[in-house]
Amino acid sequence: MLNVPSKDEKNEPLVLFMPSGKRGRFPVGTPILDAARSLGVYVESVCGGRATCGRCQVSVQEGNFAKHKIVSSNDHISPFGPKEQRYASVRQLPDGRRLSCSAQILGDLVIDVPQDTVINAQVVRKAATDRVIERNAAVQLCYVEIDEPDMHKPLGDFDRMKAVLEKDWGWKDLLIAPHLIPQVQGILRKGNWTVTAAIHRDMDSSRPFIVGLWPGLKNEAYGVACDIGSTTIAMHLVSLLSGRIAASSGTSNPQIRFGEDLMSRVSYVMMNPDGREAMTKAVRDAVNDLIGKVCAEGEVDRHDILDLVFVGNPIMHHLFLGIDPTELGQAPFALAVSGALQYWAHEIDIEVNRGARIYMLPCIAGHVGADAAGATLSEGPHRQDNMMLLVDVGTNAEIVLGNKERVVAASSPTGPAFEGAEISSGQRAAPGAIERVRIDPETLEPRFRVIGVDKWSDEEGFAEAAAAVGVTGICGSAIIEVVAEMYLTGIISQDGVVDGAMAAKSPRIIPNGRTFSYLLHDGAQRITVTQNDIRAIQLAKSALYAGIKLLMEKQGVDHVDTIRFAGAFGSFIDPKYAMVLGLIPDCDLTEVKAVGNAAGTGALMALLNRGHRREIEQTVRKIEKIETALESKFQEHFVNAMAMPNKVDAFPKLAEVVTLPARKVLTDDGGDGSGRRRRRNRE
Amino acid sequence: MLNVPSKDEKNEPLVLFMPSGKRGRFPVGTPILDAARSLGVYVESVCGGRATCGRCQVSVQEGNFAKHKIVSSNDHISPFGPKEQRYASVRQLPDGRRLSCSAQILGDLVIDVPQDTVINAQVVRKAATDRVIERNAAVQLCYVEIDEPDMHKPLGDFDRMKAVLEKDWGWKDLLIAPHLIPQVQGILRKGNWTVTAAIHRDMDSSRPFIVGLWPGLKNEAYGVACDIGSTTIAMHLVSLLSGRIAASSGTSNPQIRFGEDLMSRVSYVMMNPDGREAMTKAVRDAVNDLIGKVCAEGEVDRHDILDLVFVGNPIMHHLFLGIDPTELGQAPFALAVSGALQYWAHEIDIEVNRGARIYMLPCIAGHVGADAAGATLSEGPHRQDNMMLLVDVGTNAEIVLGNKERVVAASSPTGPAFEGAEISSGQRAAPGAIERVRIDPETLEPRFRVIGVDKWSDEEGFAEAAAAVGVTGICGSAIIEVVAEMYLTGIISQDGVVDGAMAAKSPRIIPNGRTFSYLLHDGAQRITVTQNDIRAIQLAKSALYAGIKLLMEKQGVDHVDTIRFAGAFGSFIDPKYAMVLGLIPDCDLTEVKAVGNAAGTGALMALLNRGHRREIEQTVRKIEKIETALESKFQEHFVNAMAMPNKVDAFPKLAEVVTLPARKVLTDDGGDGSGRRRRRNRE
Repeated sequence: MLNVPSKDEKNEPLVLFMPSGKRGRFPVGTPILDAARSLGVYVESVCGGRATCGRCQVSVQEGNFAKHKIVSSNDHISPFGPKEQRYASVRQLPDGRRLSCSAQILGDLVIDVPQDTVINAQVVRKAATDRVIERNAAVQLCYVEIDEPDMHKPLGDFDRMKAVLEKDWGWKDLLIAPHLIPQVQGILRKGNWTVTAAIHRDMDSSRPFIVGLWPGLKNEAYGVACDIGSTTIAMHLVSLLSGRIAASSGTSNPQIRFGEDLMSRVSYVMMNPDGREAMTKAVRDAVNDLIGKVCAEGEVDRHDILDLVFVGNPIMHHLFLGIDPTELGQAPFALAVSGALQYWAHEIDIEVNRGARIYMLPCIAGHVGADAAGATLSEGPHRQDNMMLLVDVGTNAEIVLGNKERVVAASSPTGPAFEGAEISSGQRAAPGAIERVRIDPETLEPRFRVIGVDKWSDEEGFAEAAAAVGVTGICGSAIIEVVAEMYLTGIISQDGVVDGAMAAKSPRIIPNGRTFSYLLHDGAQRITVTQNDIRAIQLAKSALYAGIKLLMEKQGVDHVDTIRFAGAFGSFIDPKYAMVLGLIPDCDLTEVKAVGNAAGTGALMALLNRGHRREIEQTVRKIEKIETALESKFQEHFVNAMAMPNKVDAFPKLAEVVTLPARKVLTDDGGDGSGRRRRRNRE
Repeated sequence: MLNVPSKDEKNEPLVLFMPSGKRGRFPVGTPILDAARSLGVYVESVCGGRATCGRCQVSVQEGNFAKHKIVSSNDHISPFGPKEQRYASVRQLPDGRRLSCSAQILGDLVIDVPQDTVINAQVVRKAATDRVIERNAAVQLCYVEIDEPDMHKPLGDFDRMKAVLEKDWGWKDLLIAPHLIPQVQGILRKGNWTVTAAIHRDMDSSRPFIVGLWPGLKNEAYGVACDIGSTTIAMHLVSLLSGRIAASSGTSNPQIRFGEDLMSRVSYVMMNPDGREAMTKAVRDAVNDLIGKVCAEGEVDRHDILDLVFVGNPIMHHLFLGIDPTELGQAPFALAVSGALQYWAHEIDIEVNRGARIYMLPCIAGHVGADAAGATLSEGPHRQDNMMLLVDVGTNAEIVLGNKERVVAASSPTGPAFEGAEISSGQRAAPGAIERVRIDPETLEPRFRVIGVDKWSDEEGFAEAAAAVGVTGICGSAIIEVVAEMYLTGIISQDGVVDGAMAAKSPRIIPNGRTFSYLLHDGAQRITVTQNDIRAIQLAKSALYAGIKLLMEKQGVDHVDTIRFAGAFGSFIDPKYAMVLGLIPDCDLTEVKAVGNAAGTGALMALLNRGHRREIEQTVRKIEKIETALESKFQEHFVNAMAMPNKVDAFPKLAEVVTLPARKVLTDDGGDGSGRRRRRNRE
């Protein structure tokens, strides 16, 4: 059936498929769908060339492109035939679209295969190119017409259907989901011996499986990509046939009531006999509720969901799957299972179509989970020529560093400071939280922005606007900014000590026991940045930087080419301030990007293209995992990273953008203690 | 690891394995287990050569068998080593047994691989050779020792276990049953990093699956073979490791309360909205109860059952699987599914180990079910050089006829007469039922045996012995015998008419309206054989014979070489009387055997050797199904088969054994009507 292009048939038309760029020569008269398939270009088709489903639409740019010229003649493609005319009159066909099962190649052609899923990277510095996920979903819908039963050939209804699915679609050795067996008879008769089968061709068992069955033509099926975060569960609902995102939404992870952070949830399991079960139920219920929410938004019946992909950190991964996470709370941080897993959705109580499958991305290590695998798949350090650093900051920072040649990964115990915990005025990112801070280098007076208020604090009308939400605390992004600004303005030393001498210069430097604080806002709530707050940030950023440094050493590099900040925290912080504080190594700031929920994007990629499943499984097997707790140099890097970057040390790219203070270090009591601390570390 | 015998290594010892007869030459020092495996001889081993499980025991006949001489020297096999001595002291090793993982080949050897499952065919005429089922179960137990978790290699517990199962046992691409995933951690730690995995290597999905997991060494696992009959459910419980049958038992099919025969159960489904569900639940409950019964008898924990094989006629097959059987009650008798099926036991509510699998044999056609497939597997017409007729008589007779070259199958609507229904004094085979009948050719006086009574009715003390159970009716086997005896003694004509003239000869010939009856017993219950009873038997036997005749025509043969009677009915009837009545074609009576529950035996074979699953799947695909309802000649054969065999017609083998009456036919009114009836049929 398929035409394999032959190299010596030079006179046959040349066809180029976009966006894949695959090309080949085909005999005049070849249907475009056949040409696409013979090249491995994935074009959807449900009706099997009957021109009724409309799923095989392509856009045609005609022309002799070998000479870089698109000509507008109509003679490179067959004219609208009766089948396409019928489809266009009943269902409408957008301008320029053709049904590839009917349209035939007459001359050289450029064909656009529509790819409706476009991932918009959340961009901080400059617009990233919108990314297209080429579709090759695990589930395919196949319409067939089946012989009626015949006493001369007593094959069962299912067995005859299987034979037609092999004849028309090439599926060999098809299996069927057990719940469908009692339904086959009724569905075939209801559809008057026509039926659409959903075939899952990415089962872990290798053989293709009939997972859904509908009478007549069924022309749509959906998938779900979901990132189970400790705080938030995020979900995309997407058409498996067109790639269209029908809805995206999120919800709080209800496990928060068992413990704010991961370790407290592990403790809850250890302390309560039913703790694991309760948390598993909570997260599954939340996922089911969220499926309900995206289905309502997208006007989709949840029983049309046939495939789901999940990512999550190791503890979320284990709890979601009903696995006791206790081992993850203590060395050697043993995962119960690290490889990719598949389930029937009902096996883990997810309420969608009974034949729906779940794919869990693999975990990289005990602290580097399926979420990091998802982010890796999304950002693709393993696809880069350059050295890419991928950082997802939470209670643990998951760090991946690498390129095509080699990828290494680690987790650093940053603690919850970046999330606003352990900070005297810290709070979650919510209305009333300060999110941006600038400090005047002369007067040391601050100005700031508050979530829920349009104006900066020094703009007219701010007080009135802020009255509604109040000014209640500092969220993670502002903690980074205020400490960085305090450093740039000399309020704190390179060593992180608030310079008491500055109190003479500004009344905002106020004594607080033996140390000094900075008064950021003096309203209904008095918001200060204390010496302890700065120490907490220093500890967190040192842990992160030490982990990165360790991976850079493993890679044998002294700089990175690009940095990707994944996750909620990464979306809100300003890379410049992150670098001023030394969270991340020196890098061209135009190459530092926030990529939002990259883990969720990775899940979406694995949902829409099963090739990405193999890609991340193979990548994870090859990633070298570094356990920071086992690396003697981690502690040394950690101590060295406590200080802020300065003018003369290794931050040349940053120095092009900001004026870093000269090397000058104060101790808590005002003396220069950096030398002493470093010596102590070397002993 | 394995030694493949090389043809030019003529000086290496020759090893012959029994009962398979496989042989090969191996280097001196090769462990016997390795030699067996390299030849494809299946020898069990759980511990992987650690000499702790004892499962690899073999019996050794030493000697230079090439010269047909068994020598008693000890130099052909390595002496008892320390591992075997340790095992023998702890667990005992029967005389002559060796552990094949430890014992090494030093010279020519004959090795007996113990095969504990011996099927005793229920024999009527002469002792059939006991049949041995060579074992090659779908489930294998594999003991492994696993590395403890290591922070430098953060593979999950499951993933490390998988790697060892590949290294030690060669399992590639192992999957795991989802319910085990949350248990892996705990089991590994409980077993101190040793574990026994049950591997199912006959999953329909092709990849091997871990279906069970136990800490340390687990040295036994069980399987169930079950035949779901309309009346009786029969079950074997058997060790998957030794093949030992732990228990065999049966129970009534509780669906009887919804309808005595198959068609009345289909009607019940059609008339009652919840009928299918109720009958499915009833049969599954009964299977679960029966599993409890065999487990109690065999002292086996039902959670040690890991594999189950079921057979049943198409309607039992559908109802057990929860499929509506309505289509099977009407032309074209469409099966919902005909091929072999696999399930997790819990998917169809069977309560055994959570990882247990169920294998359903394929159905041959709408009226020739998985039970006929099981009987075919057991008796093996497809393995014969001779033409074998296999008959299982129930409400429908399932008929299989063939040899190596070709197998054909059909179903004949015999109706329930053979089971005692539609017979005036008919009853089920139960205490009080007459089961054997002889009639004195001179006096026409009967003598009979009653189920539950040791003596014949004309023996002294019968009346006293029979008082406890009474004489309550005639069961199927006796109906055949009494009618045959009535024919042989001239009470009925070849045409099946009770000869009223005989009333003058014996008071047992009594008028009954326009016809006559034979008084078999005149006790508390008066037991007679009426003209209507004889007509019912004639209709049933004609249907059976017509089906057989049709298949013989398809095969182009005028006689069959061997006949196998399967099923309960077949176990009790005397082949001679069956042939006198013309149920079956003429055949050497020594070649007619009752084989008991051959369907159940086939299930047992498929349970113990997965090769038999492939065998029956392939055989069923090749069997030609004949639908009697579509064959115009069936009706002709049916009418012609109403008469009894006579001296001059085509029963030469039978005539050697019994004196058949000369051709003489009476009609119901006493005249000779055979000519007329036959002419009518030809018109």
